[in-house]
Amino acid sequence: MEDCIFCKIIKGEIPADKVYEDDRVLAFLDISPINKGHILVVPKEHFENLLETPDELVEKLVLAGKKIGLAVREVVRAEGINVGINNGSAAGQVVFHTHIHIIPRFSDDGYKLWGSDKKYELGEGRELAQKIQEQLNN
Amino acid sequence: MEDCIFCKIIKGEIPADKVYEDDRVLAFLDISPINKGHILVVPKEHFENLLETPDELVEKLVLAGKKIGLAVREVVRAEGINVGINNGSAAGQVVFHTHIHIIPRFSDDGYKLWGSDKKYELGEGRELAQKIQEQLNN
Repeated sequence: MEDCIFCKIIKGEIPADKVYEDDRVLAFLDISPINKGHILVVPKEHFENLLETPDELVEKLVLAGKKIGLAVREVVRAEGINVGINNGSAAGQVVFHTHIHIIPRFSDDGYKLWGSDKKYELGEGRELAQKIQEQLNN
Repeated sequence: MEDCIFCKIIKGEIPADKVYEDDRVLAFLDISPINKGHILVVPKEHFENLLETPDELVEKLVLAGKKIGLAVREVVRAEGINVGINNGSAAGQVVFHTHIHIIPRFSDDGYKLWGSDKKYELGEGRELAQKIQEQLNN
C-alpha cells in the first residue's frame, strides 16, 4: 500500500535491520526499541491490523514471532519477552500494517504493565460473558 | 498442575465467567479488567508461557483470541483491541500458565503504551540483527 512505511521496508525502498524473512513474513528491528532487540514481525501482504488479517497468515506470523522471541531472548540474554499486538489507534497502533511486537525484558528495565482498579459488580461479569458468547455464535 | 489458578478454573474448581470453550482452549473474563471485557485465552493443557507452548496449540490460541477480539470489540463497542502475551516475571507474567490478554480499548481510557528513548548506534542494529539471524539458524 502506498504511503505505508512497512510496505516500503518490504519493497526495499526503506532500509531495515532484518532478522527473518520467508515468502509471507518479514521481521526487523524496531528503530525505536523499548529495549535493544525489540523486533517487529509483519506480513508481506498489507492488512490494517491483526483482526483484519486472514487466519492462515495470523498463524504464520505468530509462529515466526515465537521462534524469534526464543532467539532474541538467547542473544540479548533477556529475562522475559512481551508479545504485543495493537489494533486501532485507541490501542496505540501507529503504523496501520499488521505487526507483532517482540520485546526483550529485564527485571530492572523500569517498564510497568498497566494495573487495574476496575471490578465487576455482582452478576455483571456473567452477563457480559454471555453477551460475548452470543456474539461469537453469530 | 497443582496450585495453578488457571488449571483450577479449567477443572471447574474455581468459578470464572467463561466466554469460549473448545477441547483445547478456554477463555474467560479477567477478574481485574484493564477495561471491562478484558479476556484471558488459555490452553487447557498446562504450559508455563507462550514460548514453551507447542506450535499447533499456539495457533489454536491465537485464532481463538482473534475471534474473541472481534466479538468483544462489538459487544463493548471498543475503539481498539490490545493483544498481549507476557512471558516470564520480568515481562509482567503473574500466572505461569500460558495466557493471551485480549483488552478492549477506548481513546479516552487513560492507558499509555511504553515510549522509547533508546536508539541504536551506527552499525549496532545491523550487528544485533545478524546475531539474531544466526541464532534462528542454529
